[in-house]
Amino acid sequence: MKSFDKSLEIETEEEGNVQKQENNSEASHNKTPLLLDSWKPYKGTRANVKEWLLKLRDCLESVCGIQWYGFATLGILTAVLSFLMDFSVAKLQQAHLWLYAKLEGHILLQFLCWTLYPACICAFASSFSHNICPFSTGSGIPEVRTMLTGIELPHYLSLTNVFTKFLGLICTLAAGSTVFLGKVGPFVHLSTMIGAYLDRLCRLIQGKKKDAGTEMMVVAAAVGVSSCFGAPVSGVLFGVEVMSSHFTVRHYCPCFFSAACGALTFHLLSMWSRDGETLQALFKTNFPTASPFFPLEILLFALLGLLCGAGTRCYLFCHRWILKFTKTNRVFLTMLTTEKGLYSGLVVFFLASLTFPYSAGQYLASKCTTKQLLSSLLESRQWSHNASVRLELDSLEWSSSGAPIFLSLAFFLLMKMWMLVLACTLPLPAGYFMPVFAYGAAMGRLFGEAVAYVTTGRDVLGQQWTSVNPGGYALAGAAAFSGAATHTLSPALLAVELTGQVTHAVPVLLSTLVANAVARSRNCPSFYDGLSISKKLPHLPSLKKACPQLPSTPLGKVMGVKSVQLQKAAGPAEVQSAVSNSSEAQIPVVDSHGTQRAFLFLPFQAYNMLSVVPAQTVFVADRGKLVGQITMSEVQTTEEYVDFYCCPQIL
Amino acid sequence: MKSFDKSLEIETEEEGNVQKQENNSEASHNKTPLLLDSWKPYKGTRANVKEWLLKLRDCLESVCGIQWYGFATLGILTAVLSFLMDFSVAKLQQAHLWLYAKLEGHILLQFLCWTLYPACICAFASSFSHNICPFSTGSGIPEVRTMLTGIELPHYLSLTNVFTKFLGLICTLAAGSTVFLGKVGPFVHLSTMIGAYLDRLCRLIQGKKKDAGTEMMVVAAAVGVSSCFGAPVSGVLFGVEVMSSHFTVRHYCPCFFSAACGALTFHLLSMWSRDGETLQALFKTNFPTASPFFPLEILLFALLGLLCGAGTRCYLFCHRWILKFTKTNRVFLTMLTTEKGLYSGLVVFFLASLTFPYSAGQYLASKCTTKQLLSSLLESRQWSHNASVRLELDSLEWSSSGAPIFLSLAFFLLMKMWMLVLACTLPLPAGYFMPVFAYGAAMGRLFGEAVAYVTTGRDVLGQQWTSVNPGGYALAGAAAFSGAATHTLSPALLAVELTGQVTHAVPVLLSTLVANAVARSRNCPSFYDGLSISKKLPHLPSLKKACPQLPSTPLGKVMGVKSVQLQKAAGPAEVQSAVSNSSEAQIPVVDSHGTQRAFLFLPFQAYNMLSVVPAQTVFVADRGKLVGQITMSEVQTTEEYVDFYCCPQIL
Repeated sequence: MKSFDKSLEIETEEEGNVQKQENNSEASHNKTPLLLDSWKPYKGTRANVKEWLLKLRDCLESVCGIQWYGFATLGILTAVLSFLMDFSVAKLQQAHLWLYAKLEGHILLQFLCWTLYPACICAFASSFSHNICPFSTGSGIPEVRTMLTGIELPHYLSLTNVFTKFLGLICTLAAGSTVFLGKVGPFVHLSTMIGAYLDRLCRLIQGKKKDAGTEMMVVAAAVGVSSCFGAPVSGVLFGVEVMSSHFTVRHYCPCFFSAACGALTFHLLSMWSRDGETLQALFKTNFPTASPFFPLEILLFALLGLLCGAGTRCYLFCHRWILKFTKTNRVFLTMLTTEKGLYSGLVVFFLASLTFPYSAGQYLASKCTTKQLLSSLLESRQWSHNASVRLELDSLEWSSSGAPIFLSLAFFLLMKMWMLVLACTLPLPAGYFMPVFAYGAAMGRLFGEAVAYVTTGRDVLGQQWTSVNPGGYALAGAAAFSGAATHTLSPALLAVELTGQVTHAVPVLLSTLVANAVARSRNCPSFYDGLSISKKLPHLPSLKKACPQLPSTPLGKVMGVKSVQLQKAAGPAEVQSAVSNSSEAQIPVVDSHGTQRAFLFLPFQAYNMLSVVPAQTVFVADRGKLVGQITMSEVQTTEEYVDFYCCPQIL
Repeated sequence: MKSFDKSLEIETEEEGNVQKQENNSEASHNKTPLLLDSWKPYKGTRANVKEWLLKLRDCLESVCGIQWYGFATLGILTAVLSFLMDFSVAKLQQAHLWLYAKLEGHILLQFLCWTLYPACICAFASSFSHNICPFSTGSGIPEVRTMLTGIELPHYLSLTNVFTKFLGLICTLAAGSTVFLGKVGPFVHLSTMIGAYLDRLCRLIQGKKKDAGTEMMVVAAAVGVSSCFGAPVSGVLFGVEVMSSHFTVRHYCPCFFSAACGALTFHLLSMWSRDGETLQALFKTNFPTASPFFPLEILLFALLGLLCGAGTRCYLFCHRWILKFTKTNRVFLTMLTTEKGLYSGLVVFFLASLTFPYSAGQYLASKCTTKQLLSSLLESRQWSHNASVRLELDSLEWSSSGAPIFLSLAFFLLMKMWMLVLACTLPLPAGYFMPVFAYGAAMGRLFGEAVAYVTTGRDVLGQQWTSVNPGGYALAGAAAFSGAATHTLSPALLAVELTGQVTHAVPVLLSTLVANAVARSRNCPSFYDGLSISKKLPHLPSLKKACPQLPSTPLGKVMGVKSVQLQKAAGPAEVQSAVSNSSEAQIPVVDSHGTQRAFLFLPFQAYNMLSVVPAQTVFVADRGKLVGQITMSEVQTTEEYVDFYCCPQIL
């Protein structure tokens, strides 16, 4: 890659001493003997330093393989980036709110401050991304997923992309509740880019030249989520579920090791930055542990899962519709291809005028950060019938005008749905996981408040439901909605890890399972599948989901069919001509012609085989007869899959 | 299979109404039309019932596939079995302690009661297992692992085995702290057996005749652990880590669904059996959440991981030694082949005489159940310097004679090590996971008590460590020791799920990672690998670990080499003779002879390919040239692998 040397320099600057030493020692190892560089000064000193560095490398290698240092560095670097981003975003948001508070009494100025600030930074982020590296927009997860299947997308791993994505994401997050987007997806992408560079560095130090495999990429995808939240276990699982169709168990240890390093760094940095706090859950909750829930509530949790699944389908439908609309509507198309900055600015200005605290924003908790919003939604005390809680909520702009809490929440859900769908069209680096997580929490809260309102003080089948906890429903709703949107189950574990509420693990998992069942029925593509389809990115496991008619497609359409065949009953002349004409290394002998027809399902299986094992060629046999072969290079040809993806009608 | 019809009958009796109806409907579906059975009575009624059952089946299938009902039934059945077992074991242990307490004042009678009770039930369990189904002894995990790789071991899935294993395991667990064995492994085996039958039932109902695959087996392996503890997430992960080398992400949903059903049933049954308790963690802990640990303690947790790793290596070495010793020593060999009952009785009598509360048992907490032992070890208050805690401990027979708590714990660790190794030789259905979990907890407790003793009231690098929590170290030790012994990371999550202490997730994971690194270094086999080697069971992923010299073995030694080849430059006569002499469906054309040499490493990769995808033949190509083929039946021939396993010196 062209920027490789430059990148290495910058890498080493970033990674501190150990990596620098390793890099230097590597350099000394691969170049000509020192004594030949006779024109360089301080020959003896340099020789000594290099010798020590070589010894250091051997010493490091004697403890464990160099790649393990790479995994640790990856985790730590990603966590540091995550912390720096949180820090910058908090400062930018504080500045905005400070300015807004200073202008108290001048509504017009307050309106301009509230709307222009996010509009300007989003316009800047869009223009910046567009001009520096257009591949930095969006979540990045569909692209990473494609790269993990072995298809090369070099632009998505460039160093420029790291900086563009990092700066752009800070701007997006600084726009706060107006834009209401998250950081998970871009962080997975950032982590993958860092991982790709560290992988090269490790292989250089080890003296390996060849591209070894995707181990570091797999690890990086897992670490991105872990470092984002400081949740090591669910991070790894989310990475596995979203990214791949098969998982090799030997990747478990590197993933968890790197994720643990990342989570630890993230926790320690968070702690040191705010004196006195220790390594706790990210969203502190105060659920009562004595009686977390009543057995019959299990049914209500399943019902909530059903509702969340239905909500997800509605959201995914709107999302697919707007993706299609922006590609077909002329105005949108022109704006999104030529005037990205202007488009972002206008859309964010429009959204901000809605979230302005003196307009609809008073019902949208628009002054909250996502963290404050989630903390208030996960509150275990009932909101209705509770004066002290109402007072706290009022300070958070939840139902400040004294409207009933149910109406407030319903309005929040209704508005945020289309606002979120609109925000998804912004050409910015942005994540789409946290918004659906928070949206699901609001949905669960509404459900939980209703349950609490109905059951308080009543006998339910002979049991007195004294203290139903609406926070538990909010937790289950968050996991169910986000899990259903991404077709994963790990958000259930993520919800548990983020809040520390293990007692609710089983009902949360149940809601997530039910919501997933609803969301996956009738082969509906997931959020990331939808993005992949819209971006024409190949993604094999979801292909079968999106186009169920695929299995009946002849294999010959995608496979390199053997041009020369020998029939079992062939005479000497035929055999002679086949052997002499063929340039292939082997010729299949078949019982009769016409056995090449197999199913498209098979090459996808072959692809899985090729991705799991380091083989280069797969022979396809039909009942013991060779009907063709598939090589890795054929599988990696992107266009074929794109054709199949985009033109299911030809099949 | 011979016992299939009988088994189906018993299955349906067990599974209640729904399954019965499904089975009946299936029968009506597959047999001849009803009107032909003219000699049977109540023709019209039966026709009606069968029609309704068929409608029910269609109705069930319209919601989701029949296999999902199978997954739910599997989870629920396993949880019910788990609950029944816990219930029976508790009653048997209570009876023992009641009798022991009644004999207070008559030491000889108490000694006889203490020793003969477990000796007799273990002798009975051994004889029973040996006579009814000799395949029911041991953990079962190595066998299940082998079956999951596609090798058929039909005796291990028979219905007789279910009952023998279930009854035998109740006896083993009833022997309590004397034998100190667990129930995880046998439960995985039990769950797999139930899964295999449910799988057949589902396929019968669906009208599929062919063996479809190992999906139900994979799910069953995950559900076994989940139902055992009511911990759905870590159960699934433990199943994945121990059982397979590759995991297909599409199995995630079935696994978690079944595990959630199992965990929910387990929790609800536990709750209903003890009035007033709700769905909480299995081992309740009371860790302070405000300041779970100090940042510098992270280093101590890593150190604990190192110690646990070293302890594991010692334990695994002893375990491998005794496995070898029992196979070479004549006395042991004779006893274990002909007099299993006598052997078990003698060994348990010997162990019981040690755990007798008036002998060494006073330092071994021998009156505790495993649950009580773990609860006391995970106590957050410091044991030393704490009079009230000492009083509680005394009631649990921890250091009843007033000996220092450190000496008590050290003695416990020293004694339990060899007692556990000895207990592992017992020919009983028994699990080996919980004992190492508890052993690790004791190790962590000793470490934590030492840390608390040293740091209490002192400044550590400018920070006042007022309240170090030794329970946190016990938790980390338990996860690290058991994780290192089984070469898995999921015990870290299991420790979190069992106790509900999410705040300790990161240090626990760190300890487990470090312990794993120590335990896995120098290709040391895991506990289950050791058992596989001892039992001569093929287990591919560990082969490479146990015999690092394998990759340099010629492929031809294990692979069906093509007997007939064609050289590229062959004349017509050679080609003619090759085609007419060969019975193969294809003939490889090679550049020159002698290209068949490849590496043994390749068939293992091929094996992985074959296990992941439903192909029947894999062609091995060396730089584009076909050098041979491997079929599933070749891979499944057990003996070849056993030869390679047991005779690494011939390679």
